[in-house]
Amino acid sequence: MKEFKRLIAYREALSLLLNDLKEIPDGEEVELEKALGRVLAEDVVSPIASPPFDRSAVDGYAVRAEDTFQAREYRPVELRVVDEITAGEESRERVEPGTAVKLTTGSKMPEGANAVLMQEMAEREGNVIRVLRPVAPGQNVSFAGEDVGKGETVLRKGQVLRPQDLALLKNLGFKRVRVKRKPRVGIIVTGNELVEEFDEKALQSGKILESNSIMLEGLVRQYFGEPVFYGVLPDDEGAIRETLERAKRENDLVLITGGSAFGDTDFAHRFIRLLFHGTTIKPGRPMGYGERVFVMSGYPVGAFVQFHLYVKHALAKLTGVRDYEVKVRGKLAERVSSQLGRYEFVRVRYENGIVRPLKKRGSGLISSLTESNAYLEIPEDSEGYLEGETVEVVLY
Amino acid sequence: MKEFKRLIAYREALSLLLNDLKEIPDGEEVELEKALGRVLAEDVVSPIASPPFDRSAVDGYAVRAEDTFQAREYRPVELRVVDEITAGEESRERVEPGTAVKLTTGSKMPEGANAVLMQEMAEREGNVIRVLRPVAPGQNVSFAGEDVGKGETVLRKGQVLRPQDLALLKNLGFKRVRVKRKPRVGIIVTGNELVEEFDEKALQSGKILESNSIMLEGLVRQYFGEPVFYGVLPDDEGAIRETLERAKRENDLVLITGGSAFGDTDFAHRFIRLLFHGTTIKPGRPMGYGERVFVMSGYPVGAFVQFHLYVKHALAKLTGVRDYEVKVRGKLAERVSSQLGRYEFVRVRYENGIVRPLKKRGSGLISSLTESNAYLEIPEDSEGYLEGETVEVVLY
Repeated sequence: MKEFKRLIAYREALSLLLNDLKEIPDGEEVELEKALGRVLAEDVVSPIASPPFDRSAVDGYAVRAEDTFQAREYRPVELRVVDEITAGEESRERVEPGTAVKLTTGSKMPEGANAVLMQEMAEREGNVIRVLRPVAPGQNVSFAGEDVGKGETVLRKGQVLRPQDLALLKNLGFKRVRVKRKPRVGIIVTGNELVEEFDEKALQSGKILESNSIMLEGLVRQYFGEPVFYGVLPDDEGAIRETLERAKRENDLVLITGGSAFGDTDFAHRFIRLLFHGTTIKPGRPMGYGERVFVMSGYPVGAFVQFHLYVKHALAKLTGVRDYEVKVRGKLAERVSSQLGRYEFVRVRYENGIVRPLKKRGSGLISSLTESNAYLEIPEDSEGYLEGETVEVVLY
Repeated sequence: MKEFKRLIAYREALSLLLNDLKEIPDGEEVELEKALGRVLAEDVVSPIASPPFDRSAVDGYAVRAEDTFQAREYRPVELRVVDEITAGEESRERVEPGTAVKLTTGSKMPEGANAVLMQEMAEREGNVIRVLRPVAPGQNVSFAGEDVGKGETVLRKGQVLRPQDLALLKNLGFKRVRVKRKPRVGIIVTGNELVEEFDEKALQSGKILESNSIMLEGLVRQYFGEPVFYGVLPDDEGAIRETLERAKRENDLVLITGGSAFGDTDFAHRFIRLLFHGTTIKPGRPMGYGERVFVMSGYPVGAFVQFHLYVKHALAKLTGVRDYEVKVRGKLAERVSSQLGRYEFVRVRYENGIVRPLKKRGSGLISSLTESNAYLEIPEDSEGYLEGETVEVVLY
């Protein structure tokens, strides 16, 4: 008897599950210092203009541009320096015809001045400068609001906060920012064959070291979630049912990976109303989804592929994050073939614009995940790509 | 008088400072659970083979392949099932001629068997299966060491640990891994013009909200360092000297950003033997380096550029990390020009293989950093690139 009656197409399955999930509405206020890498929960509108005042972009002299129009190296114009300020200070003098105020980069423009003469364009003697070249109105001045206008939307909901975004927020006077709550993702690992500690004898008698949990925890973190690990369970229906119910109550999503329990005996159907079970993806076919629970492969490679093709997008739906994947284009170093009817996840190595498919394609080989750094997707209706074709891959 | 006597070329300055720094020798043992995103301090060699035994890749029957060679759908071969195991169990029976052992995916191969017949290729009646097709020796078997051989180098020093790397380590029996200590990076911000809290009146009188510290802290974290913030200091020689000395003692690197103090009066030279001060980069020219201290711009854009062009590479030298930059190729949406003799850092937006240079190129505009997601480098000897040219950009 076959395990699955019908495989549903990858995109169909994906849209079924995305339609089943809603963006989590709740955000939380966090201090800017703790917001790096978080997902912005709302658009940010600037309460002020930045810079808040006209300021000098260089070290030099604030002048009335019209006073300098006649200045030439062979016929300098003389101006009287009435004040000197540095950034952070405000001049109490007004720049009247025939005068100038010395200032440094970032200084607030004094009243009356409309341009800044760079320091090296003037010769100074005592209180007098000789202007060697004319400056145009506005020259070397950064105007108020030039960076950000008051009321301007500066950051958009769904973006991941980077160091420069935090700098902008701080520069606009924010101390906190509203980010999405991290979706909680329960992780349950099942399988009589699994042991959690290294044990030579156990391994020789057919046991396997459990490694799905640490991988899924890391992936959940990478995609803006908070993992909650519920331990490794034996293939015991009662224990699994109980833990699964608890995990569903306590989390936004649940990932349960199973070995034989979900293969031969189709355990999962007894606990969860699945929207689908078994899709066209390869590897990782025997995945089920229903009631916010992903029934995933016991093999790390299968679980990894299922995470990237399904769970990652589900997490993105929950947080509303945009640009969570880095896609790059490269030339295929060799042809790669795929089975018609299967949505293949091909492990590749991307380097300097070249995409090399790995020879290792078995679903039992964790080393194929560590040796690769990206994946290429080949849809069901394609037999593959030729050597030299430009393809898009997703980095991991 | 000009600020700087001589600009040294970007690459020359970079190699001067990289030669001045050494990879930090010390690593630390961390639990796998805490190792995500850390830099591996040494090559990892597998102490065991994985899988540790030959195992079945499918649900089915372990057989002697030669027993099935004559099997056809119209002339099945009969075998007697002498045992049933699931993954994690070991059969006590040997597969003798004419017998089979039922097993599930991942089960250890019983003695005597050399292939697995998929479940759907057999019809079962009581203790007897009728084999409908022949299997070849080794078919549907994953052999011991197929994923990783004993003594094989599986991960390389300098790589950043990803979820799948941790899974492999756990699968091979590791509980801890040796990663590089995070370089400590002291951050000192100076400038009389800076305020740390929003204050309408102060901003109107020429002050600026300090935003370099949070940006540099975030960047240091992104590139595998541990930031230590020493506060915002006024342009006071004594205070700066004292804090700088302390920061040098307590950290692997120090970043000090200065406004006027380091421009007009060239403060920095009095404290530090600089290897260079002023390079050809644009924006961000007035940067100095010496004695593990980076004297950086007071403007966030300048400091950001200096971080990416210099500090990032210095941190990479300290940790020995590889692949710390994501470089992608794209087509320029429009021409971009550059001043000969300057090493330009052009803020761009990379999307779907298209590179759009930002119109905002001023060095006072933090919004130019938040609106861009990558940079394009234009060396000193280039006047720029044409529309449609393929260029490589670095994502941030």
